Amino acid sequence: MNKRMILYILSTILLIEAAFMLLPLAVAAIYREAAGWYFLYTILGAALLGLLLRVLARPKNKTIYAKDGLITVALSWIVLSLVGALPFTLSGEIPSYLDAVFETISGFTTTGSSILSDIEALSRCMLFWRSFSHWLGGMGVLVFMLALFNLEGGQAIHLLRAESPGPTVSKMVPHMADSTKILYGIYLALTVLQVLFYLAGGMPLFDSLCHTFGTAGTGGFSVKAASMGAYSYYAQSVTTVFMILFGVNFSIYFFLLRRKLDLVYKNTELRWYLIIILASIALITVNVLPQFSSFGDALHHSAFAVSSIITTTGFCTVDFNRWPEFSRVILVLLMFVGACAGSTGGGLKVSRVVILVRTAQMELRRLVHPRTVKVMMIDGKSVSSDTIRAVSGYFMLYVLVLVLSVLLVSLDNFDTSTTFTAVVATFNNIGPGLGMVGPVGNFAQFSALSKIVLCLDMLFGRLELYPMLILMLPGTWRKN
Amino acid sequence: MNKRMILYILSTILLIEAAFMLLPLAVAAIYREAAGWYFLYTILGAALLGLLLRVLARPKNKTIYAKDGLITVALSWIVLSLVGALPFTLSGEIPSYLDAVFETISGFTTTGSSILSDIEALSRCMLFWRSFSHWLGGMGVLVFMLALFNLEGGQAIHLLRAESPGPTVSKMVPHMADSTKILYGIYLALTVLQVLFYLAGGMPLFDSLCHTFGTAGTGGFSVKAASMGAYSYYAQSVTTVFMILFGVNFSIYFFLLRRKLDLVYKNTELRWYLIIILASIALITVNVLPQFSSFGDALHHSAFAVSSIITTTGFCTVDFNRWPEFSRVILVLLMFVGACAGSTGGGLKVSRVVILVRTAQMELRRLVHPRTVKVMMIDGKSVSSDTIRAVSGYFMLYVLVLVLSVLLVSLDNFDTSTTFTAVVATFNNIGPGLGMVGPVGNFAQFSALSKIVLCLDMLFGRLELYPMLILMLPGTWRKN
Repeated sequence: MNKRMILYILSTILLIEAAFMLLPLAVAAIYREAAGWYFLYTILGAALLGLLLRVLARPKNKTIYAKDGLITVALSWIVLSLVGALPFTLSGEIPSYLDAVFETISGFTTTGSSILSDIEALSRCMLFWRSFSHWLGGMGVLVFMLALFNLEGGQAIHLLRAESPGPTVSKMVPHMADSTKILYGIYLALTVLQVLFYLAGGMPLFDSLCHTFGTAGTGGFSVKAASMGAYSYYAQSVTTVFMILFGVNFSIYFFLLRRKLDLVYKNTELRWYLIIILASIALITVNVLPQFSSFGDALHHSAFAVSSIITTTGFCTVDFNRWPEFSRVILVLLMFVGACAGSTGGGLKVSRVVILVRTAQMELRRLVHPRTVKVMMIDGKSVSSDTIRAVSGYFMLYVLVLVLSVLLVSLDNFDTSTTFTAVVATFNNIGPGLGMVGPVGNFAQFSALSKIVLCLDMLFGRLELYPMLILMLPGTWRKN
Repeated sequence: MNKRMILYILSTILLIEAAFMLLPLAVAAIYREAAGWYFLYTILGAALLGLLLRVLARPKNKTIYAKDGLITVALSWIVLSLVGALPFTLSGEIPSYLDAVFETISGFTTTGSSILSDIEALSRCMLFWRSFSHWLGGMGVLVFMLALFNLEGGQAIHLLRAESPGPTVSKMVPHMADSTKILYGIYLALTVLQVLFYLAGGMPLFDSLCHTFGTAGTGGFSVKAASMGAYSYYAQSVTTVFMILFGVNFSIYFFLLRRKLDLVYKNTELRWYLIIILASIALITVNVLPQFSSFGDALHHSAFAVSSIITTTGFCTVDFNRWPEFSRVILVLLMFVGACAGSTGGGLKVSRVVILVRTAQMELRRLVHPRTVKVMMIDGKSVSSDTIRAVSGYFMLYVLVLVLSVLLVSLDNFDTSTTFTAVVATFNNIGPGLGMVGPVGNFAQFSALSKIVLCLDMLFGRLELYPMLILMLPGTWRKN
């Protein structure tokens, strides 16, 4: 393990975070909020620590391997969260540091689960930082670092792979730095577009920025207690559309820019993503119709809820916890499916679900025709047996982490719906669950143990298991 | 497809069922119950239909392939249940035929879920038939047929494979008929032993027989509303021990008889089965301690509940639905694990769970050491990649059936706990779930659609997916 190089990257992460904290500092300056000083203290502390580490670590050998990459990413996200939580607790706005860490991890992992019972009591700079962490976490902080600095050769791909969601990660263009620049370029362009749409509908700039950050990162933190329910139908519809857009694999936008329409058309994941969304909206609209005054209303809120859940954003317009069980089950299933690989969304990812379903189909076909060999096709190309095996293995690990988490959280002795969906909503980086953690509830009532478990689940979910698992395996730290 | 041979086997199944119905007829004669006449009518009808089919089908070619075997088994179980339900409805003791079919499928599949709100109102011959169906379904009716008649060559193995639980099925001795005779021999011996233990504790013969049938088949139908709660601690402890014994792979008993202790000692599944049971009992005992007057009481009821659920029997001594969430979650997890392959229990089976967990472990190890090749070892032998792939595929299909069932049952709009555990408890052939289908509840309140879905789930679970899936695939019936 190249410990010096890992520390060196961590120092860079600290400096980047300090730089990004200048934004909430500026917000505090504009609104003349006293809480802003705590951002300044944190920036100075983080920058100092970062520079110190940078000098001390200075690696002779810059080579890192797959395992180092995974550990680096896991540690980076933990450091980001521990430092990012400081202003909340220093300012006393979230007195418990554990709660502040929960809220910050929830931000960076684009989960959107909150321990706050009164969001609107927070100062604006804190609200801004909370939402901005979604934007940063959405595309990935290490990806940002890669876009900024040229890391040599095959090393950067280990970091990119470890931080990017989905069963396979491919570079769009040969050079890593160029690839990540294109990614952030598309991300920024879509972000600006959404802010403009919000502003056109009369939403204040501050609210527009915060909600765009929440949409872009598929996070879901709002600045209002009523979430998107506090805004107009227009603003809600804009959110619905952009949530779906940010749940798409960013390669699709790259293909569109390059006018490679055939690649877009052949994309299996995109097709299934849209089919699942449309089918879910249709089923839920019919199911909730009696609860709304008109078909249009039912459709509007169904579309919002489906887009919010499948993209793992977690904004709400209405309390879907009160919807009929059929709709609730569909929403819970969508929590597992998640968005597309290579998007900012969480969950298992549509491509993994497609591969898993096709694995089941193939097994069935093998039973009827034992002698014929069938090849699984995705995007018009055959899927390697290695990928299929890796996806099955990933799913097993996913189930194991889920089961263990539910078991630990159940020690708090809440009802089944609350216990189960609290884990599902954090592990898949969605935000709200059902029961006591539904759209109008929050995560404050959990014990410290459960909060720690749910924090880990958010990190497990965002980083797709492996970085955190490797970090926590005793074997990783054993000398041999 | 060899339709004539399938019909021929079905006719044999009808005759066997008619023969077995002589037992409840005898019970009716002993207790002079008028309801007994309906068994006589059903016996005559089934025998007549069986003989007629036998004459009409008379196959020239007796060869059947894997697919035919699966279809035969699925159809046999459906026919068994449709006919077996007749006495309940004809006698008016279960007026709705759908309910009667539900109860009969629940019996044959050794599920033990009931639509009856007052079990004790049933006449004794009906109670006997209900429990006896557990005993028949436990080891398998086609397995019984194979023990009775010599089917030629490689054909019988297709039927045995399709009806026997577990990822792999092996014959104990070279000849199929001898293998199945040994199986039924062990089954009968254990059954007699349990009846003797019950009688020694003063349980009436009728109750002893019925509860032994329920234990042997890991079914769980009782003749008392309070289930095993109506009997002494001694009787409950006997049940605990025998439930665990019937959840063991019957090969183990064969090894013991042949004094092959090394094979018993090396058996991975048995080791895990016992570890899971002991760990679950320990955790639940500590968790429920405050609800009981003494440690002994808590241990007694925890041991009973754990054995009852992991073996998918479903007897109860107390209402575990009122236990803390942690214990409830453990019980739900045990519902999925199930008993050992080659036992009469349901669920995923311990061996599959072990293979799935090891698949996850291997995936993790591959990540850290990409170049080392690791082989999975079970029972001291390496597991083929075909078996690993088949188990993964099975698990995916299992999840898909589970998800679809929950979705359909959720249309009844009950709470999450009820909806989810109703499917889990029937699909894994357990019996009681949590919420409204907990130990003191029943399945009567569900809609006709849900009851049909749950009936199919019971059959899917008992026959391990493939026979029912093949039967229901449109491709099976398309001519090409």
